[in-house]
Amino acid sequence: MSILVVGSVAFDTLKTAYGEREKILGGSATYFSLAASYFTKVRVVAVVGEDFTGEHENVMKARGIDTTGIERAKGKTFHWGGEYGENLNEAKTNFTDLNVFQNFSPRIPQQYADTTFLFLANIDPALQLQVRRQMPNVKMVGGDTMNLWINISRPQLTETLKEVDILLINDGEAKLLAGDSSLPRAARKVLQMGPRALVIKHGEYGATIFFRDGGLHPFRAPALPIDEVQDPTGAGDSFAGGFMGYIASQGKLDRSVLTKAMFYGGVMGSFAVERFGTERLQNLTTEEINARFELFRSLTHLE
Amino acid sequence: MSILVVGSVAFDTLKTAYGEREKILGGSATYFSLAASYFTKVRVVAVVGEDFTGEHENVMKARGIDTTGIERAKGKTFHWGGEYGENLNEAKTNFTDLNVFQNFSPRIPQQYADTTFLFLANIDPALQLQVRRQMPNVKMVGGDTMNLWINISRPQLTETLKEVDILLINDGEAKLLAGDSSLPRAARKVLQMGPRALVIKHGEYGATIFFRDGGLHPFRAPALPIDEVQDPTGAGDSFAGGFMGYIASQGKLDRSVLTKAMFYGGVMGSFAVERFGTERLQNLTTEEINARFELFRSLTHLE
Repeated sequence: MSILVVGSVAFDTLKTAYGEREKILGGSATYFSLAASYFTKVRVVAVVGEDFTGEHENVMKARGIDTTGIERAKGKTFHWGGEYGENLNEAKTNFTDLNVFQNFSPRIPQQYADTTFLFLANIDPALQLQVRRQMPNVKMVGGDTMNLWINISRPQLTETLKEVDILLINDGEAKLLAGDSSLPRAARKVLQMGPRALVIKHGEYGATIFFRDGGLHPFRAPALPIDEVQDPTGAGDSFAGGFMGYIASQGKLDRSVLTKAMFYGGVMGSFAVERFGTERLQNLTTEEINARFELFRSLTHLE
Repeated sequence: MSILVVGSVAFDTLKTAYGEREKILGGSATYFSLAASYFTKVRVVAVVGEDFTGEHENVMKARGIDTTGIERAKGKTFHWGGEYGENLNEAKTNFTDLNVFQNFSPRIPQQYADTTFLFLANIDPALQLQVRRQMPNVKMVGGDTMNLWINISRPQLTETLKEVDILLINDGEAKLLAGDSSLPRAARKVLQMGPRALVIKHGEYGATIFFRDGGLHPFRAPALPIDEVQDPTGAGDSFAGGFMGYIASQGKLDRSVLTKAMFYGGVMGSFAVERFGTERLQNLTTEEINARFELFRSLTHLE
């Protein structure tokens, strides 16, 4: 099975307690596709500028990711600058240079038409819907969003949510979207907006999946207590990549697959934050991924 | 097996989004002993004033709790006033009238001498140590503390920690105690201070137990996503009561007992917050407790 992700391929200029990096490869589609590439065939739709080199592209190609859908536009690549203080869950944005991303109009290459799974990373919900409508036959659609779109594009987001099967957002986004400070109540309200399942990411505390079908119990996966979070950027996108990638590799959506997918999401998120940028996600082995999966299991396994 | 708790029996005047209550029964020893009473024989050492009536005491007696060790002093009972806003993990204190608690000098009644387990709830670490030394033969000692003591009584706390087997504190307290913002690193540092195990409570995200023996994996128990947290007061003490009460009921300390104890801690904490004060903890059934235990299991059970 294959998965298509549409999102940002970008440069990040970062500062954390562990150091600084300038213009390193980042973006939601980048983290997502690297994480998902350990599970399934990944295809990317994004836009980059003239400063995006073959070397950058090779980071994805080396993982077997199909980059045909990465459009090259005149101008510079989306560039985000930010830093993290003690609270690693909150980045302080120093600048957001949208550059070529400002006029992004996602186009699905002909050879992507047979893709079975779709992930709409965090971009303008109007663009998410545009992509969704170009892929009417996919088996399942995952999506992400953020406070910005909830605040400024709620009507468009509402339309998009009707065509998303599993939404992945964090605690604050869920509460804002639902207008409710109780997380389980917020989850139920979001599930009334369209998705069949909602994954709420709790940062270092793991993530919970809630189901629209009230007969299905929620499931909570842990996050690994990580000694040294060098750079939290991309943790959520890497979670989504592990989660959706594993689902795509299994091809079905029963509870067993979904609960394991929650674990693989946590596993990939935990790897991502151990090094700056995408460094850790570029060279993992199946053994490392399986070992961490087992560590997660032992972390929650009731004897 | 039996467990002795030393801590506060108090009155709380509270305000939450769900209403207000004046001078209702509260205190760390009260929540702890009610929660533990569903698992084992509980004995209490505390001090109350002349405004503590037979009716108040009957709340504990009705649960079979031995209140011989509750000393009656001239004056008023410890009275705390506070309120909770959107963030249920942080209370705003309106007043703290220590009253008779100010001169509390815990004395262990003769008939408590054969107690097998001891819990030092959150009181002055000098008093905790005084109690610990009066009970040299207990099988295991659990303890709690708070930012106040970490800030103003660190030397005494350091002495006490050397004689505590399992410390139960929250994220912020662990980080403050260790002087480290990374939770797993903070855990290791706290474990170097004495305890063999450290339970870090994450509020609505559950709790993690870390072990001094590096060969033992940590274990994370979930908290139930609760729709309506009417009053978060006593959640941590109720967790401790379920956790220690279950351990005391089993009498041994292997991983199977400890992981189940983490679950029972979460179960009792989740019941406590559903109603104001100790209301929910007064009338639980074994069936309700077991059903919630199973719900917790399904919440984290990997299929």
